[in-house]
Amino acid sequence: MSSDLMHCVLLSRTTDLRKYLKDEIKRLEGRVAFVDHLDGTNAADVRMAVGWHPHADAFDHYPNLQAACSIGAGADSILACPSLREDIEVVRVVEPAQAQMMSGFVIFHAIWHQRNFATYFAHQRDRIWKRMGQRTTQEVPVGILGYGAIGARVAADLAALGFPVKVWSRSAKPTSEGVTGFHGADGLNAMLDDTEILVNLLPLTTETRNILNAALFAKMRRGGYLIQVGRGEHMVEQDLLDALDNGQLAGAALDVFLAEPLSKEHPFWTHPGIVLTPHDACDVTLPAVGQTILATAEALKAGVKPKDAVDRMRGY
Amino acid sequence: MSSDLMHCVLLSRTTDLRKYLKDEIKRLEGRVAFVDHLDGTNAADVRMAVGWHPHADAFDHYPNLQAACSIGAGADSILACPSLREDIEVVRVVEPAQAQMMSGFVIFHAIWHQRNFATYFAHQRDRIWKRMGQRTTQEVPVGILGYGAIGARVAADLAALGFPVKVWSRSAKPTSEGVTGFHGADGLNAMLDDTEILVNLLPLTTETRNILNAALFAKMRRGGYLIQVGRGEHMVEQDLLDALDNGQLAGAALDVFLAEPLSKEHPFWTHPGIVLTPHDACDVTLPAVGQTILATAEALKAGVKPKDAVDRMRGY
Repeated sequence: MSSDLMHCVLLSRTTDLRKYLKDEIKRLEGRVAFVDHLDGTNAADVRMAVGWHPHADAFDHYPNLQAACSIGAGADSILACPSLREDIEVVRVVEPAQAQMMSGFVIFHAIWHQRNFATYFAHQRDRIWKRMGQRTTQEVPVGILGYGAIGARVAADLAALGFPVKVWSRSAKPTSEGVTGFHGADGLNAMLDDTEILVNLLPLTTETRNILNAALFAKMRRGGYLIQVGRGEHMVEQDLLDALDNGQLAGAALDVFLAEPLSKEHPFWTHPGIVLTPHDACDVTLPAVGQTILATAEALKAGVKPKDAVDRMRGY
Repeated sequence: MSSDLMHCVLLSRTTDLRKYLKDEIKRLEGRVAFVDHLDGTNAADVRMAVGWHPHADAFDHYPNLQAACSIGAGADSILACPSLREDIEVVRVVEPAQAQMMSGFVIFHAIWHQRNFATYFAHQRDRIWKRMGQRTTQEVPVGILGYGAIGARVAADLAALGFPVKVWSRSAKPTSEGVTGFHGADGLNAMLDDTEILVNLLPLTTETRNILNAALFAKMRRGGYLIQVGRGEHMVEQDLLDALDNGQLAGAALDVFLAEPLSKEHPFWTHPGIVLTPHDACDVTLPAVGQTILATAEALKAGVKPKDAVDRMRGY
């Protein structure tokens, strides 16, 4: 075993990571050796992992494993693994291009609601020529849950288009021009008050699970709109349907779901107020995943903390 | 007749301007007296007009009329009036909020195309869960025809989202960050080359009539997208249908048409590549129209050229 060759195990019960990361595995040849789970490699040589929904006991097999990289911006599927030890650094992929991709996606849905495109589409289908006039972006306050790298970009871009933007995060953070910050439990209520479009960009933690529920929707401006691009587990699905049906929400754009792929029978597919996409709002690119793996391998060799390691206490 | 009271005639064969401008007429009471066309007022007292598709002989009745204000950003419906004299100043409404409204509208359609939302919508209708991945904005060059106040705002906002932006105008103009300028006939071909999304924001003049035709579409990147928010007369409608049907264009967002309202039988309503809206992309607000009327009245009293008067040689 060369001490320069980092052994990295691929841990997933849902995704063929060797196939998914094919090009990056080739690119890192000679620097990182990728091994399959339980393939007979000396498990003691394995110092890091790439993980995505790993098996419950996955980490038990690798006593010297020091770091596990996600293949996305969220590391919740690794953090939820029962065999994950406290001393393993969990690393997520942070990529500026992903923030821009997410921003465009959110802007699209924000304007869809602000400009009432659902009605334009219905009118076109029925050949109805009816001018509706418009509200300005200034009249439609947007609230953003989560103010990390992606939330900051989305907030700045929405503010540049004239939307009043409020953001909420766990702890206080400085905000960019046109963005008002809120934090903590009291801050959440203040942020939701009069918010018409709510964007969920939170990490999934025990504290944020089910945060999108009837009580939260009720605090928004009536006739509001939800843009759900966090995790399916953030939302109580029946509460969304109820809020749409009782008019508290006018509509919702959903990219993430409790069970993916969404079952053919799910009521979301046909609900007139819902626009849905298949967890496709923004992916990190494969080169960014490869770069994260390499940077983590080099950090381990150098004996330093990997960049973009998750704060295990916060959960992101 | 008080010399402080400006007589302004309402000239339209398509719109009830007294009703449309009701609130502004009230607001300007005591400063501008609005009279109806041929209502018996001493025509010699009338020094200005508000016009929108005026009757062909409208201006013949007012020998002392010095200025005519449009109720929109375009003055073409006044400029096309056969009785309009050379010495009448034609004034259009310029409002920053309108540029922002237009920008949001264009951004929506640009992302609709970049992110292939037409396919997402079709998939939702058919309950198909299929991730498609995405192209970044950097991969989708946008060309903008027209670089006035509105074009400049649209260009800057698209560039901020990462789209490569090229603009074309009649004469050379300085451009903002991330925006490449082209002008003149040769510049038009250079601008169209590799342009995937084309946004029409030109004023309607004899030179720009029918500019959106088969020859122009053929110069764009194959599979392109048209966002038509200028005037219906800019486009040869059959050429658009042909370009959509032969695949040169993948789709089009149309807000303006040769005949408005669009007839129920028009093929645009049901074409799968077309998203249409009823000339609703952006209106100037009524207070901005009122402000333009007042500013024009005050300019006439002061004997100075009204602000935002059209250059009659250029036509805008």
